[in-house]
Amino acid sequence: MGIIGSLYAREKKIVDLSADFRLKDSLVYEEWYKTPHKEKKLLKEAVYGLPELNRDEIKRAHLVANPGCYPTAIILALAPALKNNLIKEDNIIIDAKSGVSGAGRTLSLMTHFPEINENLLAYKVEGHRHLPEMEQELSILAQKRVKIIFVPHLVPLNRGIFATCYTSLRHPLRYEEVRQVYKDFYQEEPFIEILDEGKFPQIKEVSGSNRCRIGLMVDKEKKHLLIISVLDNLVKGASGQAVQNMNIMCNFEEKMGLEGGLS
Amino acid sequence: MGIIGSLYAREKKIVDLSADFRLKDSLVYEEWYKTPHKEKKLLKEAVYGLPELNRDEIKRAHLVANPGCYPTAIILALAPALKNNLIKEDNIIIDAKSGVSGAGRTLSLMTHFPEINENLLAYKVEGHRHLPEMEQELSILAQKRVKIIFVPHLVPLNRGIFATCYTSLRHPLRYEEVRQVYKDFYQEEPFIEILDEGKFPQIKEVSGSNRCRIGLMVDKEKKHLLIISVLDNLVKGASGQAVQNMNIMCNFEEKMGLEGGLS
Amino acid sequence: MGIIGSLYAREKKIVDLSADFRLKDSLVYEEWYKTPHKEKKLLKEAVYGLPELNRDEIKRAHLVANPGCYPTAIILALAPALKNNLIKEDNIIIDAKSGVSGAGRTLSLMTHFPEINENLLAYKVEGHRHLPEMEQELSILAQKRVKIIFVPHLVPLNRGIFATCYTSLRHPLRYEEVRQVYKDFYQEEPFIEILDEGKFPQIKEVSGSNRCRIGLMVDKEKKHLLIISVLDNLVKGASGQAVQNMNIMCNFEEKMGLEGGLS
Amino acid sequence: MGIIGSLYAREKKIVDLSADFRLKDSLVYEEWYKTPHKEKKLLKEAVYGLPELNRDEIKRAHLVANPGCYPTAIILALAPALKNNLIKEDNIIIDAKSGVSGAGRTLSLMTHFPEINENLLAYKVEGHRHLPEMEQELSILAQKRVKIIFVPHLVPLNRGIFATCYTSLRHPLRYEEVRQVYKDFYQEEPFIEILDEGKFPQIKEVSGSNRCRIGLMVDKEKKHLLIISVLDNLVKGASGQAVQNMNIMCNFEEKMGLEGGLS
Repeated sequence: MGIIGSLYAREKKIVDLSADFRLKDSLVYEEWYKTPHKEKKLLKEAVYGLPELNRDEIKRAHLVANPGCYPTAIILALAPALKNNLIKEDNIIIDAKSGVSGAGRTLSLMTHFPEINENLLAYKVEGHRHLPEMEQELSILAQKRVKIIFVPHLVPLNRGIFATCYTSLRHPLRYEEVRQVYKDFYQEEPFIEILDEGKFPQIKEVSGSNRCRIGLMVDKEKKHLLIISVLDNLVKGASGQAVQNMNIMCNFEEKMGLEGGLS
Repeated sequence: MGIIGSLYAREKKIVDLSADFRLKDSLVYEEWYKTPHKEKKLLKEAVYGLPELNRDEIKRAHLVANPGCYPTAIILALAPALKNNLIKEDNIIIDAKSGVSGAGRTLSLMTHFPEINENLLAYKVEGHRHLPEMEQELSILAQKRVKIIFVPHLVPLNRGIFATCYTSLRHPLRYEEVRQVYKDFYQEEPFIEILDEGKFPQIKEVSGSNRCRIGLMVDKEKKHLLIISVLDNLVKGASGQAVQNMNIMCNFEEKMGLEGGLS
Repeated sequence: MGIIGSLYAREKKIVDLSADFRLKDSLVYEEWYKTPHKEKKLLKEAVYGLPELNRDEIKRAHLVANPGCYPTAIILALAPALKNNLIKEDNIIIDAKSGVSGAGRTLSLMTHFPEINENLLAYKVEGHRHLPEMEQELSILAQKRVKIIFVPHLVPLNRGIFATCYTSLRHPLRYEEVRQVYKDFYQEEPFIEILDEGKFPQIKEVSGSNRCRIGLMVDKEKKHLLIISVLDNLVKGASGQAVQNMNIMCNFEEKMGLEGGLS
Repeated sequence: MGIIGSLYAREKKIVDLSADFRLKDSLVYEEWYKTPHKEKKLLKEAVYGLPELNRDEIKRAHLVANPGCYPTAIILALAPALKNNLIKEDNIIIDAKSGVSGAGRTLSLMTHFPEINENLLAYKVEGHRHLPEMEQELSILAQKRVKIIFVPHLVPLNRGIFATCYTSLRHPLRYEEVRQVYKDFYQEEPFIEILDEGKFPQIKEVSGSNRCRIGLMVDKEKKHLLIISVLDNLVKGASGQAVQNMNIMCNFEEKMGLEGGLS
């Protein structure tokens, strides 16, 4: 936030990895981040940098707010269902699990090895900063106020976000119908993979890559839709997505530099 | 199941760690365990071995069915709320996480170190064998048919069950009210701990012990009750609980042999 | 060091977990710990608190210097061989591996979870503070100047010291002969276990306990003796040994409070 | 071994990842691998596929025996010192640590997650199959019989070989002299890195890459040379090296496909 103004004035193309331009409402920002927003006038210029939703705007943008790792996993999981009005917007529960690098490199007792190794904990249960960012973008998709329950957990592994999303179908739907909506929604997307019936993604499958993998299940009563999405918080959840945004902004091949991955 | 009949005939006191006498309905057993039940007549003699709910019956029992690890954590988490009719019985979502010893000692690719280390996965999403056991006991508590959504996950640590339970309050309640119900329900229990407001339990806190720790949160709208419970699947979730049952059956001091623990 | 003087003056029995009274020579202390020694006159009163070597002195002591975790594992591994003059004192190589709790609870980048998980490193290769303590005690045992090569490594697990000790036999010996020396040396010791031929100890076997387990191998040429010892750095390597020393000093049963353990 | 003969007859270029053509003496092979060698006549055609030592022969070879993971790390660590006669060939001690994927994908209790997680163990202490392969190649380098002490350990992480090599200098040498020998020996090598004084490599630095990093230390008495080398057992220790050999055999750019890596 401190340097974006001068970069913007010099007509640089900017991908900001911080949270400073993700929230459209500076009051919400100030409430969650406990600091005054210093570049309010740029907020309306900023584009939320999720290419699967906002590719055209990113292409024209000068300032892209790179999404958080949880929001990337969770918005990608819910977007097809909300956009197509498949699920109720008032009964969405997200149980999210993050590898420890998701908590950053700042030293803390919570991320001290003997504290989190052989441990598992829920944190910021009463409110995580990524919550308003998710609700903002999900509400845009649903074209109505979406409110989610979001409980993040820290698990003893280095990389990865695993989001288990519990939702209620607005009308009964068969698995195949839901899956087709998801396949259509992401059909051109190089980094999104919708799994086959009965398959659910694992963190290992996306480690080191820019991919997001999504598995779906409809229960027997056709009332509930379970969506599981996984990504690597350091790649699709951070720097990989930043490179993807840069590629789009600069008219480079979108996948350039992003096709590797350990698995 | 193969030897229980003859032991029972000899008037031995039996704590069975298998699932053979947990389900009261042999048809449900046969559906989930894919094997005929060979001791149907003993099913009505068996007591479900959760001391916090059934201590008096355990005291008189000759055959105790020791609960599974997930059911122990989850029934203990939900019992006060269901028994006291605080929550809706048709919108209960359990996102459960288990250490790898919970998957048993039989070798499998899923539990091969390089497969699950640095990984996290959901398994048996379409139906885990502990589901009917939980729904049976929860329905008894609620005195109506309880149906839950239950998604178990495997996480790369040795021991521990972590159950995040998402429920809907039947009527608006303040945190203090819910907590008081939980405190009252478990007030005499040596192994159950209800945490203070804003505190949530971690696996590390129960590792090696027979304890179950439970944290609670009511959301601002007083509509949702979040319950998190943790225990060690090898102790309170298996052999520790078996010892506790034995102590009760034999009129030993209930805590005998169960007061240790690493933490 | 700051409070020991006044405690000592009041005739308290003291077990000091710090390194302040382990080194008999205050100059060596000041060289390694970079701080002046404030209680030099008490150094000659202090007893090195390794019960297997100094039980009688500990019994009479008012001030016991509790050994470091590496020294406990390594001195116990080498003592029978050095005391009985089996090995050369000038070609002893110790490759030691420690769980992360051995590095303490102070936050550091080295012990930040994502840095050490999935990693392994050697540290303080050019000189670890436990080196002079080990050489002092080993020299007393051998009754000549012992100099060792000691390389500590940090491995991604919580607890445990694993010391692989490479030594040269002074004269050819069969495995059985060496083992008998070790069995005799530790025959009365409740916490030391000498393994059978072809067996080597694992960290898991001592985790949570006050035990030290030792495995031995003599090579075909009968020139080299390999000694592997393991212990839990938080128990036999720290607080467990302190309790053991307290028990001895106070004429309590030596094993009191120390018979548990996870494995 | 079963199909190499027919492939060779058809003039294919072969990189064999098995151990079948690593040992020049079929009797040694049969002693360690407990199976008759079926292609003895091809043994003299096979080239040991360590490009840093045998690049010219690999270029002309039709059959390359890809080295084991331990031998790659350890031969690269010792080659400059042995080739230049810096160290004694009869007092070399290798304390090696391997990630669990080094033990292969075959299920075993040793690699079952709850057995090796939070554990550390030495295995095949009385003789690992990679020992004759290492002694063969090291003896060629030294032009005399080299015999090493080699103790492999399994550590709870997925990938990586960490070899701590303890050697005795033939004549006193300063660190800078040794380092210069190493720098000269590997000066053209794209995948070998010799670290600066006081620096030692970590597994994390090579994870996912084809690199081998080597750190050196000479003790104050200039009697001992400590060499630490690390590599990723799945890349430089296996498939990466196979690709490197293929590139050389096929006159491709040697680094093709091998420049990535997580770190």
